[in-house]
Amino acid sequence: MPGLNALALVCTLKPSPAASSSELIARQVLGALEPHGVQGRLVRVADHDVRFGVSTDEGDGDEWPHIRDQVLAADIVVISTPIWMGQPASVAKMVMERLDAELSETDEDGRPSMSGKVALVAVVGNEDGAHHVVAECLQALNDVGFSVPAQAGAYWVGEAMQSTDYRDLDETPETTHSTITTAAAGAAHLATLLRDAPYPPP
Amino acid sequence: MPGLNALALVCTLKPSPAASSSELIARQVLGALEPHGVQGRLVRVADHDVRFGVSTDEGDGDEWPHIRDQVLAADIVVISTPIWMGQPASVAKMVMERLDAELSETDEDGRPSMSGKVALVAVVGNEDGAHHVVAECLQALNDVGFSVPAQAGAYWVGEAMQSTDYRDLDETPETTHSTITTAAAGAAHLATLLRDAPYPPP
Amino acid sequence: MPGLNALALVCTLKPSPAASSSELIARQVLGALEPHGVQGRLVRVADHDVRFGVSTDEGDGDEWPHIRDQVLAADIVVISTPIWMGQPASVAKMVMERLDAELSETDEDGRPSMSGKVALVAVVGNEDGAHHVVAECLQALNDVGFSVPAQAGAYWVGEAMQSTDYRDLDETPETTHSTITTAAAGAAHLATLLRDAPYPPP
Amino acid sequence: MPGLNALALVCTLKPSPAASSSELIARQVLGALEPHGVQGRLVRVADHDVRFGVSTDEGDGDEWPHIRDQVLAADIVVISTPIWMGQPASVAKMVMERLDAELSETDEDGRPSMSGKVALVAVVGNEDGAHHVVAECLQALNDVGFSVPAQAGAYWVGEAMQSTDYRDLDETPETTHSTITTAAAGAAHLATLLRDAPYPPP
Repeated sequence: MPGLNALALVCTLKPSPAASSSELIARQVLGALEPHGVQGRLVRVADHDVRFGVSTDEGDGDEWPHIRDQVLAADIVVISTPIWMGQPASVAKMVMERLDAELSETDEDGRPSMSGKVALVAVVGNEDGAHHVVAECLQALNDVGFSVPAQAGAYWVGEAMQSTDYRDLDETPETTHSTITTAAAGAAHLATLLRDAPYPPP
Repeated sequence: MPGLNALALVCTLKPSPAASSSELIARQVLGALEPHGVQGRLVRVADHDVRFGVSTDEGDGDEWPHIRDQVLAADIVVISTPIWMGQPASVAKMVMERLDAELSETDEDGRPSMSGKVALVAVVGNEDGAHHVVAECLQALNDVGFSVPAQAGAYWVGEAMQSTDYRDLDETPETTHSTITTAAAGAAHLATLLRDAPYPPP
Repeated sequence: MPGLNALALVCTLKPSPAASSSELIARQVLGALEPHGVQGRLVRVADHDVRFGVSTDEGDGDEWPHIRDQVLAADIVVISTPIWMGQPASVAKMVMERLDAELSETDEDGRPSMSGKVALVAVVGNEDGAHHVVAECLQALNDVGFSVPAQAGAYWVGEAMQSTDYRDLDETPETTHSTITTAAAGAAHLATLLRDAPYPPP
Repeated sequence: MPGLNALALVCTLKPSPAASSSELIARQVLGALEPHGVQGRLVRVADHDVRFGVSTDEGDGDEWPHIRDQVLAADIVVISTPIWMGQPASVAKMVMERLDAELSETDEDGRPSMSGKVALVAVVGNEDGAHHVVAECLQALNDVGFSVPAQAGAYWVGEAMQSTDYRDLDETPETTHSTITTAAAGAAHLATLLRDAPYPPP
């Protein structure tokens, strides 16, 4: 049986080639999925002309449909986002709004198009905000049909009001490494189960 | 193979026998689980002397340990809560803080004690707040090891600033009924999969 | 003494001339400020090429600086946003991220550039989410220096999962009208006090 | 003219005499208010038999009414809370639910009983969660009539998943000290303005 596919949607506010801590942690999550036979792809959303909206295609050059095709092909979707003001980045919000359209996209059996897919959230910030960002993302993704494995949030934040970035740490702290490993193992396990035994149609 | 067990933790602020909308929706969720072979139990937390804390037993007459035993025996845990000020009830928060202790309670293979269990959230309020309550509850429950099936939130709220209670509606709106049915079907499916194929040990 | 100025930043996802419920409630808030001697302006953010970022000017045609000039000239700033998935619109998040830059912009006495300004939040959605949207917006705006009058959230949402828009109601419900009136009166009062007696420098 | 009064409601889960980081930061906030002529009192809520509910007096030995009297006498109310699972402590939620009753308690001119009072939030946790806790508390307090001065959140959190408590730090970090000083200065200024020039009646 072919392996699973994961897609990481990196929601940094900055296009490439600017250095990005949320791209770094997304790559680490994809790396942790690999030993479980999961093939990873990464899209840095700010590199594409994605439009605000709540449809699958806003037209007029909107590049979301290309990203959407990769979401549809993925078994596991990783939302990776920086924290701004204790909250998910606007780019992550924009991505989730676009996914809101999937509620009305159903397969021949009436399941929403995201049914059977598994969500992870990876979060980094200088300081404070990871749990809330995980909450906002998991709720939105679960609303549209994603399932969530145990301990699906991988994160790092520094001490209150400090300013070192995740990508400038000498090495990944063991604690953060452990959240990445756990989240990846759970996602691979859950995605395999749901691929082999889909949710019953409504 | 024996069937699954579900436990609904009703987090209304009022002890029995006061009428409770969150007890009503909890009973409806348990009812929707039944056709999937899931046997339900319900605990109204405010009927018991549960103490504030983050340990498994706060001692001195703390009645959480009896509830905890039922959590440990359940495959599916339903947190049912009213909305106050747009947020989960304090009783729901107290319950989640008690569950925080489970992170350090691991089985012989090192899995947290909640590993393999599935969470649902049922929410009712006069008006406004259900999505955020779902977000707060799912994040906290997922943090300690619960898995979340697709569309795990069942809810009803009324129009802005209106005051009719869920339990006083002539009948359950079809929309709310549908969220209950979907959440229950997903939870039964996911709990069966995770019982038959547990997460790998860390 | 000259009157106060208010700026409403409408954060609908859609550019003009599409009909917008969040533009409607923003106009109602500005209308309610008028009898208090407050002159209102309205910017529909999606009509402008505002870039993602956390600086005052992202360059390269970024149109935020023009909006920022109007923020700087305002005594009262109203964030008006639709609810998507129970959360503030991505456009509102983008606006707040741009305002994050103001923390490092201080006047000659060391006060942040938003010091003395007053924030209101106006929220509409088909159903559910207003309180949480108010929470996210007020916290972010307060973080960067805005003050918040009593009951600063004006809102309307419909019953769970219904689909009528605010702009399609036959008339503004009395309850929502009352939140608009209260928020406006409080903002005018507070902005007057803070103009006449600024916060002491740090 | 007599000075202002502040009341700190410490929402640690543990009764005295257990050491409490949220009591420590509350005392620091009261200390920072003193030079502004504000006299402080502190109530550790878990030392009192406060009942769950949304009324001003739940009867049967409920000790909230005694605390409520001190809230009514205060110009500034400080909610001080630990972070559990990235969220406000259940005791803080319980306190806010009790304050929900104040919406229907109006003075002879129709103002809610909390009108003119100013809110601050002080938050400590081992790691992560302060901004969201501030958001939850400010929204709930503002809903019932509290006004919020610029930068009303004073906080400390450690790096992701570390375990040192605030009260065990060698000294208060300069950054946290600065949030305490700023919040206190703003609260004293705003409370003075609102005492001398109350909100107009509705």
